[in-house]
Amino acid sequence: MVGLALLLPVGTGLRPLAAQIAQEKPVKVPAYTADGRMLFPADYRQWIFLSSGVDMSYGPGAGTGHTMFDNVFVNPEAYKAFLETGTWPDKTVLVLEVRGGESKGSINKNGHYQNSDMMGVEAHVKDERFRGRWAFFAFDDAVSAKEVPHEASCYTCHEQHAAVDTTFVQFYPTLLEIAKNKGTLSPAYLKGEAVAAEPAGDSKKPN
Amino acid sequence: MVGLALLLPVGTGLRPLAAQIAQEKPVKVPAYTADGRMLFPADYRQWIFLSSGVDMSYGPGAGTGHTMFDNVFVNPEAYKAFLETGTWPDKTVLVLEVRGGESKGSINKNGHYQNSDMMGVEAHVKDERFRGRWAFFAFDDAVSAKEVPHEASCYTCHEQHAAVDTTFVQFYPTLLEIAKNKGTLSPAYLKGEAVAAEPAGDSKKPN
Repeated sequence: MVGLALLLPVGTGLRPLAAQIAQEKPVKVPAYTADGRMLFPADYRQWIFLSSGVDMSYGPGAGTGHTMFDNVFVNPEAYKAFLETGTWPDKTVLVLEVRGGESKGSINKNGHYQNSDMMGVEAHVKDERFRGRWAFFAFDDAVSAKEVPHEASCYTCHEQHAAVDTTFVQFYPTLLEIAKNKGTLSPAYLKGEAVAAEPAGDSKKPN
Repeated sequence: MVGLALLLPVGTGLRPLAAQIAQEKPVKVPAYTADGRMLFPADYRQWIFLSSGVDMSYGPGAGTGHTMFDNVFVNPEAYKAFLETGTWPDKTVLVLEVRGGESKGSINKNGHYQNSDMMGVEAHVKDERFRGRWAFFAFDDAVSAKEVPHEASCYTCHEQHAAVDTTFVQFYPTLLEIAKNKGTLSPAYLKGEAVAAEPAGDSKKPN
């Protein structure tokens, strides 16, 4: 649920990962190389699942023609902190995994299920070392990734539209309720919701 | 990914659950009442996520007209055993959570994301206390559920089509690879795959 259109890597280095990511031992996250690349958070499939979407996009485009799922996970330490505070602590790592979808297979006749075709893994990381405290990383392989430059549109989009602390909690149903209860929804998100809730035509009413 | 068409409960008792299931403390599963009802596995959203599908169905029907997602989780102990053996140990609990999907909301323009509308929670449980070692439970509320009678079609469908030990591992991409490597795919599933892979028309060839 980060800037897919901009960031989606070809991901050929990610394709043989299915069984490997299922079995990874816990690693400390986030971790970086000496030159500031983020190490691939190898065990993310054993983190806390936040939600899944299908063919989501934020622009008017009609998509890629392929069905794609996105699964979002967060490291358990950050999840626990969110439950208590309604927002994210330092060292939060959200992972967006993009996977192919299939319709006809085995006994399935309708809709779509996820397959082993890994189309991308992106991380959104909160760490005081970054300008603005958050950074994006798009992995082309299961080793490491460079920080996405802060001029990229994903940063401004998340700042302007995300429900909590630049993250799209509006698409994570179990967390959205907690953020509402804790009063941590962003002013920008609340303003957008208020505009969306106005009856159509209200802006044209005379006085 | 169990028998939705048959089992989907109205689920009105499940609707206010979003924030609650995010915060549940770990509980021992499976657990039962004295009269054999299964207790709701309250912390399942913190288990291991296996996969998510959208509008899947196994029959020719055109669906309900609503977009529905299904998320599948398994208890961590059973997951660890599967990684080692390629199959499920006693006391495995798979939870299928059915949720509503939305398309237009916040900045999303295409595809679907999951919302807080809980449409059902079902469990598929391996326990030596059951006839055939596995049983289904469909929860109408977040308290407990009665065992689905073993005459229900979900049992025969899972026995006839599931890839591993009556579970639909063919729809859980990270586990499918492990089952292949461990040689635990069911004969019925392998036969179905072999038939599907035959060139069209082969069955009509003379000799």
